[in-house]
Amino acid sequence: MSNGSALTASRLVYSEPGDPINVIRKETFPLPEPGDQEVLLEMLAAPVNPVDVNIVQGKYPMQVECPGYEGVARVMKLGPGVRSLKVGDHVIALRYVGTWRTHLALPEQVLLQVPKELGIAEAATLTCNPPTVYRMLKDYVEVKPGDTVIQNGANSACGVLAIQMCRQWGINTVNVIRDRPNVEELKTFLKNLGATYVFTEEEIKTTDVFKTGRLEKPMLGLNCVGGKNAAQLIRHLDFGGVLVTYGGMSMEPIYVPTSALIFRDIRLEGININNWFDQEKNFADRAKMFKDLISMLKNGQLKAPPHVMVNFERYEEALKNTLSKDGMVGKKYILDFSVVRSKF
Amino acid sequence: MSNGSALTASRLVYSEPGDPINVIRKETFPLPEPGDQEVLLEMLAAPVNPVDVNIVQGKYPMQVECPGYEGVARVMKLGPGVRSLKVGDHVIALRYVGTWRTHLALPEQVLLQVPKELGIAEAATLTCNPPTVYRMLKDYVEVKPGDTVIQNGANSACGVLAIQMCRQWGINTVNVIRDRPNVEELKTFLKNLGATYVFTEEEIKTTDVFKTGRLEKPMLGLNCVGGKNAAQLIRHLDFGGVLVTYGGMSMEPIYVPTSALIFRDIRLEGININNWFDQEKNFADRAKMFKDLISMLKNGQLKAPPHVMVNFERYEEALKNTLSKDGMVGKKYILDFSVVRSKF
Repeated sequence: MSNGSALTASRLVYSEPGDPINVIRKETFPLPEPGDQEVLLEMLAAPVNPVDVNIVQGKYPMQVECPGYEGVARVMKLGPGVRSLKVGDHVIALRYVGTWRTHLALPEQVLLQVPKELGIAEAATLTCNPPTVYRMLKDYVEVKPGDTVIQNGANSACGVLAIQMCRQWGINTVNVIRDRPNVEELKTFLKNLGATYVFTEEEIKTTDVFKTGRLEKPMLGLNCVGGKNAAQLIRHLDFGGVLVTYGGMSMEPIYVPTSALIFRDIRLEGININNWFDQEKNFADRAKMFKDLISMLKNGQLKAPPHVMVNFERYEEALKNTLSKDGMVGKKYILDFSVVRSKF
Repeated sequence: MSNGSALTASRLVYSEPGDPINVIRKETFPLPEPGDQEVLLEMLAAPVNPVDVNIVQGKYPMQVECPGYEGVARVMKLGPGVRSLKVGDHVIALRYVGTWRTHLALPEQVLLQVPKELGIAEAATLTCNPPTVYRMLKDYVEVKPGDTVIQNGANSACGVLAIQMCRQWGINTVNVIRDRPNVEELKTFLKNLGATYVFTEEEIKTTDVFKTGRLEKPMLGLNCVGGKNAAQLIRHLDFGGVLVTYGGMSMEPIYVPTSALIFRDIRLEGININNWFDQEKNFADRAKMFKDLISMLKNGQLKAPPHVMVNFERYEEALKNTLSKDGMVGKKYILDFSVVRSKF
């Protein structure tokens, strides 16, 4: 392995928000030297998430220099004061650091070591979606075995995680997807993952699954779509229920009927896992959560999202595919740094 | 005073939701006899509130036999087991009982005695709006002296109470009203009540009162309008702020941008004071609240809403005026039972 002293690193950057294909460029930078309590990392893999694309597009109120919400890295060099990690360990960062780069130096305390037995794709996609889903199921309303959770965008990366975690915890899921060619195939896929019911946007409007008492009305709804679709989730929530929003794929606002708030005591909240990680009061829960998640991933109770590894040099391919509709709702494209590394 | 034995009482009832003028009829009924722990009441005054009209219209998911959310009554006869009240006391009911009637028997424990020095209009309008505003300012987010609250429908009955309570507690208010002829007159009226700023719906879109730091961004918004107007309140809320909805005058849903929930940690809740009263955990807070409210009303720190007393026999006039736009946002019409009573 290189000691890094004469090497250059490279990263993806942008100056002004816009179409990622146009504004993102690759640049080299000197390999950073870790400070006293820092470690130098070489990235192993970093997903291109829809949220990353939206940040570059300027659709979210956030601008960064180097994008990339998550990824897994290997410890390459330790600062003199580092005690908890050793060279070769695999780590993820519990803060937005910009992972679309070959190398970065980070303070020891923002890093979480992950076992090497965890697959690279599992580790690279561990920071963002699994904690978002875990917190949504834990923090907003008590959901017990036998209860029901309703969600839209059920085939999204978070959607399929919610199905799997709920199955694991004995919670029923009512899953809403957009109508599409071969919709039965997607329904079967989701049911095989553990979905209790899967409905299209049309079907959810008229379902009698709650009226007939086959399922308890849900106290929790997970929304990543917005618009009228979210209003349907709100309609099915029980008295005192909560709709937690983690995305807005339809690019439409959420339509909330006044009567739901006043007469059914419905509450609307949003989650941003980045904010959650930043709050000191959550540090204890963080450790327990990752222990649970890593255990479920290692047991195969949670599966990594369908994904394609794309050589970092061909990052434009990953951006293009994530921008297309198929990318958004289908496979996740993960930047793979192994070719870059092998040059050293 | 009559002992009621040979008398009949009368009340307003409806069987099917519809236009109140068409569906509401007056009927007589035998004067009820109070049970052991009940008291027989004669109503003194009962407002016709927009919410009452909406219930009769079937716009709210609630149907009752005899409408009427609030009102003040006089104790006429005690059941043998009643200890806390005496004949002649003035009381209000802390539960939906249907106040549009000359007499009713109620359990002692749902009644709150109010001092006779409190004006009849003040007491008649004490159950619904003042507690709604009080709870909105106390229960959703901490609002301290020097902080800001933003609200729409600022000239509504609740709106003007919020202005007065905030002034009393050292809280700044940013108040949104619809543009109208003589808007400056209404602005002056609200400023004289204690409003810090008053803006029309157009003006609130471009105000720099937060940007320039003249006021802290609000952590609390009070919404009784919905639609795009509510979205403006959400836009001005600070990170972590709450929009509490207590009405939907525009009859439009609330448009909530996804990014507000995710990136600004905004929360949406609703309040229904009837539900609040029903919850046992609130019984202690209830006593303190009414002590505060009655004290503010007696001191003139809170004023009764602009109102017109209408003889109960002429209830249709009160219904018609409340149905008109002017009624909804202007004077409150209060059914006055004194003429009925004087017959006994």
